Amino acid sequence: MEEWEEYEYKPKSVKEIFIEMKNTAEFMVDLAYSSILFGEEDLAEEVLELEEYLDMLNYHLMVHAVLAARNPKDAEQITSILQMAHAIDDISNAAADLAKMVLDGIELHPIIKEAILESEEVIGKVIVSPDSILVGKTLEELDLASNTGVWIIAVRRGKRWIFAPDGDFKILVNDVLIGRGTQTSIDSLKEISRGIIKVIGNE
Amino acid sequence: MEEWEEYEYKPKSVKEIFIEMKNTAEFMVDLAYSSILFGEEDLAEEVLELEEYLDMLNYHLMVHAVLAARNPKDAEQITSILQMAHAIDDISNAAADLAKMVLDGIELHPIIKEAILESEEVIGKVIVSPDSILVGKTLEELDLASNTGVWIIAVRRGKRWIFAPDGDFKILVNDVLIGRGTQTSIDSLKEISRGIIKVIGNE
Repeated sequence: MEEWEEYEYKPKSVKEIFIEMKNTAEFMVDLAYSSILFGEEDLAEEVLELEEYLDMLNYHLMVHAVLAARNPKDAEQITSILQMAHAIDDISNAAADLAKMVLDGIELHPIIKEAILESEEVIGKVIVSPDSILVGKTLEELDLASNTGVWIIAVRRGKRWIFAPDGDFKILVNDVLIGRGTQTSIDSLKEISRGIIKVIGNE
Repeated sequence: MEEWEEYEYKPKSVKEIFIEMKNTAEFMVDLAYSSILFGEEDLAEEVLELEEYLDMLNYHLMVHAVLAARNPKDAEQITSILQMAHAIDDISNAAADLAKMVLDGIELHPIIKEAILESEEVIGKVIVSPDSILVGKTLEELDLASNTGVWIIAVRRGKRWIFAPDGDFKILVNDVLIGRGTQTSIDSLKEISRGIIKVIGNE
């Protein structure tokens, strides 16, 4: 989902739509917390665009699902998909509510940021220095989620944001990575991005 | 939150209650997906107990927050905490809705489990063999979330479940670990738990 164009709907199977909905909702929560922590309206706006995208996916899921029912047993099973999709949609709406707090410009209590920084899973920001082994590598090569425990949520390159970068995404010097993980894993990614740690995972 | 007793409310600061709410809601989503994937009613029931716990935390948060407001500026900031708590509560309710699908015994469509297994973050189950380096180590020593990218959600020991085990929790032979992470990291934890891989992270 690197570019807006990719949010457009291409006909997919119920399963593909459903997985896309689950991934999108989880990503929206991460992005919403990031927007609050860093006070970044761009991230908050992206959450709201994703909410519309998810509503559209949900609509297509319902159309596909209703068409697929052939008998009462089908109908019960298909209803279970719609129920789960409803819960996923609720999660995405909660993420949108979080993002709206940033866009409405209300003054946030300091403990909100503290809570995001002191939860079990935290959000962190790292800047890639020229000495870092991250430079020139793709996210697929690095597999940071498995090797460091950090999920990359978004990357700022100059004035541009790349959201949920995919495996082909190549890290460049001065990229600002926003990630989610344990405090230890965020700290370790910071050292990697500063060029202090020169190995990743079991390399 | 290893034992039920620990769910009882002990007076805490607004910040502590708030962080506990955020952690609990995120944990509930993981646990709800686990209950669906493995068809485990025990996990689903735990999600519903946590929903009650979270409602109680939310109530205490509101009482504390309202008491803390001294002037209009305070009130605006404190309202932001209540808004965020509301979004967190919505997420926990969505998790409870997912768990109820398991407890209501409705027939789930096969693509529901497939979606949980094929999302970006997946849920996996591993059994600890006598040869594994995990045996006898605490979760704090292992720090699996940072070192393997897998978050341990719950552990089954014989007939008993331990939910959200804390750092002191020591892994024993035949423990069944339920975790959340990338497919690669779950696969790697499987090899570690089988005794095939003998190192963790950068050891």
